[in-house]
Amino acid sequence: MIATTPMAPYYAVIFTSVRTTIDEGYGDIAKEMIDLAAAQEGFLGVESARNEVGITVSYWQSLDAISNWKANTRHLLAQKRGRDLWYEQYKVRICKVERDYDFNLS
Amino acid sequence: MIATTPMAPYYAVIFTSVRTTIDEGYGDIAKEMIDLAAAQEGFLGVESARNEVGITVSYWQSLDAISNWKANTRHLLAQKRGRDLWYEQYKVRICKVERDYDFNLS
Repeated sequence: MIATTPMAPYYAVIFTSVRTTIDEGYGDIAKEMIDLAAAQEGFLGVESARNEVGITVSYWQSLDAISNWKANTRHLLAQKRGRDLWYEQYKVRICKVERDYDFNLS
Repeated sequence: MIATTPMAPYYAVIFTSVRTTIDEGYGDIAKEMIDLAAAQEGFLGVESARNEVGITVSYWQSLDAISNWKANTRHLLAQKRGRDLWYEQYKVRICKVERDYDFNLS
């Protein structure tokens, strides 16, 4: 649920989106993309939630790992389908995680 | 919904959380914290969604603005109440947004 990530620094991609009303293929391909991302070299974890807006944050070891994932053939197809069908708008932010801390109820 | 942010670089705080089943005061104070954050110097915007996990990303002009917000008196009280009542676990990640891009269906 909350991604287990290594000591900072590492990288995050914040993908914020607003969906259209078109569902055609969305669920299957969204799931496929999570599984495929998780199989990429340098992938560290992912967190996702959606209400009016959807937020998916994926974590990566390096900017190169992020570039490789962006250029993945299946992912490129999903990105195009996203723009054609599923998303009214989205924003992608590439970030360096400089520090982090957490809390766990014991 | 999707935060309108200036040209990178700027900063993001990714707050990922898992709630307890205790609601006592949560909704009111969550709303108050969003309004109060928005009134801080250096605040740029916020995005939020919750399913199994909640993700709130707030955007800031500088690390100083983030430190000031973390140390805000009302916010400190809310953080303590969060640990005592509302959150099973959470993770906070302080990030530098190095670049971004977006898509808008026209």
